[in-house]
Amino acid sequence: MKIGIVGIGHSKFGRRDDVTVQELAFEPFVEALNDSGLQREEIDATIIGASPVYMTQRSIAGPVTEYLGLNPQPVWLTEAACSSSASALRTAYALIKSKMHDTVLVLGVQKMLENPTSEILKIMGRTGDVQWEAPYGTTFANYYAMYANAHMTKYGTTSEQLAKVAVKNHFYGSKNSKAMFQKEITVDKVLESRIISSPLHLYDCCANADGSAALIVSNEEISKKISDTPIWVEGLGAATAPFSLLTRAELSTLSSAVEASRSAYTQAKIDPTNIDVAEVHDCFTIAEIMAYEDLGFTERGKGGEFVENTYIGGKVPINVDGGLKAKGHPVGATGCSQVVGIVQQLRGEAGQCQVDGAEKGLTHNVGGHGQYCLVHVFSR
Amino acid sequence: MKIGIVGIGHSKFGRRDDVTVQELAFEPFVEALNDSGLQREEIDATIIGASPVYMTQRSIAGPVTEYLGLNPQPVWLTEAACSSSASALRTAYALIKSKMHDTVLVLGVQKMLENPTSEILKIMGRTGDVQWEAPYGTTFANYYAMYANAHMTKYGTTSEQLAKVAVKNHFYGSKNSKAMFQKEITVDKVLESRIISSPLHLYDCCANADGSAALIVSNEEISKKISDTPIWVEGLGAATAPFSLLTRAELSTLSSAVEASRSAYTQAKIDPTNIDVAEVHDCFTIAEIMAYEDLGFTERGKGGEFVENTYIGGKVPINVDGGLKAKGHPVGATGCSQVVGIVQQLRGEAGQCQVDGAEKGLTHNVGGHGQYCLVHVFSR
Repeated sequence: MKIGIVGIGHSKFGRRDDVTVQELAFEPFVEALNDSGLQREEIDATIIGASPVYMTQRSIAGPVTEYLGLNPQPVWLTEAACSSSASALRTAYALIKSKMHDTVLVLGVQKMLENPTSEILKIMGRTGDVQWEAPYGTTFANYYAMYANAHMTKYGTTSEQLAKVAVKNHFYGSKNSKAMFQKEITVDKVLESRIISSPLHLYDCCANADGSAALIVSNEEISKKISDTPIWVEGLGAATAPFSLLTRAELSTLSSAVEASRSAYTQAKIDPTNIDVAEVHDCFTIAEIMAYEDLGFTERGKGGEFVENTYIGGKVPINVDGGLKAKGHPVGATGCSQVVGIVQQLRGEAGQCQVDGAEKGLTHNVGGHGQYCLVHVFSR
Repeated sequence: MKIGIVGIGHSKFGRRDDVTVQELAFEPFVEALNDSGLQREEIDATIIGASPVYMTQRSIAGPVTEYLGLNPQPVWLTEAACSSSASALRTAYALIKSKMHDTVLVLGVQKMLENPTSEILKIMGRTGDVQWEAPYGTTFANYYAMYANAHMTKYGTTSEQLAKVAVKNHFYGSKNSKAMFQKEITVDKVLESRIISSPLHLYDCCANADGSAALIVSNEEISKKISDTPIWVEGLGAATAPFSLLTRAELSTLSSAVEASRSAYTQAKIDPTNIDVAEVHDCFTIAEIMAYEDLGFTERGKGGEFVENTYIGGKVPINVDGGLKAKGHPVGATGCSQVVGIVQQLRGEAGQCQVDGAEKGLTHNVGGHGQYCLVHVFSR
């Protein structure tokens, strides 16, 4: 049995003090429901992807389900830091494939900005090791700065190359009305911006955000019946890497991403050359460069120069919706947002950022500082 | 394909300042692994059931996986308040039934007591509605006190009947070396204890705790191969109830429990009279009385007098390991702990609390103030 995505929705990302978490969840839900043509009663279960620790309302699955009018259907939340909603899609796939449910709503939602930035930094830091690393003040920028230093030292990657990732993603973000930032930037602007954690400048880092995105996932029969353009989930990969930096063999790669993509390619019976468009987890510019290599789009060590190939028209267009960099990164919503971007591409509905004739797409959603990675492959 | 439970483990519940969350997770994992006879390498994936908001270490799935030596296998966490680890078992069942994985570790783990009680009350209260209810100072005892008042008003249920639930569960808890409280109490002691939220006395309430429990779940082929006594998952029910009290038709019942048990019985092709032993979610004594009715063990309104039938030798022995009341309630661990209790019963390994010839068992795990409920039916 194939599993299809039959409905998508995406809220505006950014500062969303105008809505409660329930209201924020409602926005992409209604879009996705209308997109699918299904009735609310046809949703058999909901899986929410979110990181509970940022939100005042605890255990949001309950209030969200009530607000969306989905009682008495089951719901629960999946959490794997920044890859929470990719885990939600993996759960939904299993629930449908096992025939426990026919149609599942996957909803990524996060309100981060009700916390002051200092509090967000502290919460985020606690995703790292609180016993051995957090006491030294580790923030997420610190982790990725260490990866950047390792990559630069080993392969000669430059700050200019990092900056070019930001420039590309802001270029595409400028065309995405749902993105937090919709203006272009230049390499100079990145390099002149203040250092957050050396060698990462302000513009090398994605921004904390509020946001939500939704997917309606159905079994093969329903997908074919209700949709002319179901997008099929062809491969699902998930893996973990050691949590403590101490136990990692290498800081210039995420072994979880290598392993997860290997599984996804195997299940989908393809290799990286078959991917027409991808969304990768560019929480920091170095993360996108590592992803080029970890996903096999280019050779190990060549990520820095590969960015030129990731524009539309290049070898593999990547993050042509703006990526985390320009869209903003509402932790739990990001995995779903990536899938929305790929579904739009494979349906041919990506407007001015359409990759002509895209048939296979990939999402790469990293959790924490790489302890989790989920890679999904889709086809039209 | 049938799904079997082939390994179980259970930590000591109570104040566990002696261990980190990783170490706490390790205790039942090693027990379950040894119990199953499997090697660590044969675990294909892990699903952690926990409520992240109580713990200093954020996104515990990563550090726990590393500590258990389970990298690079996938892991994520499921959260549905107090029913987090029943949701984890439901996820594991789907992952195996869909053939995505053959053997999955389900691990419920929670450290609550690193927070002061006032902080726990606040966090727990935020599982209720933070917009309309929490501002009035709602705690969990308040919610269940309202249910108790509704049940008393409608059916004449008495404080003595509530107290008898506590007395029974402490009686059995006194025989469980893993329980937080191992001493018997009397009806008088309950009624003389201070009021927490009228009509609930101190001894009507379960205690916050640290603890963990683990299940190793396998497909039919592996279960039969490695175990002489696999315990089969026969029915899985999950449902939600409206979140806000305002929108509930009735406060003396949990519609989520009624709906979830209906699904579980249907899948297992049984009715409540077939259940030989059950673990129900007695976070407060009134919750156990409501469960008797919601699960169909007795008629609506007769729960108060049914407690006499729930001792060993009675109609349906319930919580004969001590329940949440005597074991303590480490939120995310409770659902797994209940399953451990039932598996021991169905294997005939429950020692002095064995229900002779038990063939079918049930767990009833409620999340929040009833917005979630999962009911599972097992057989030997």
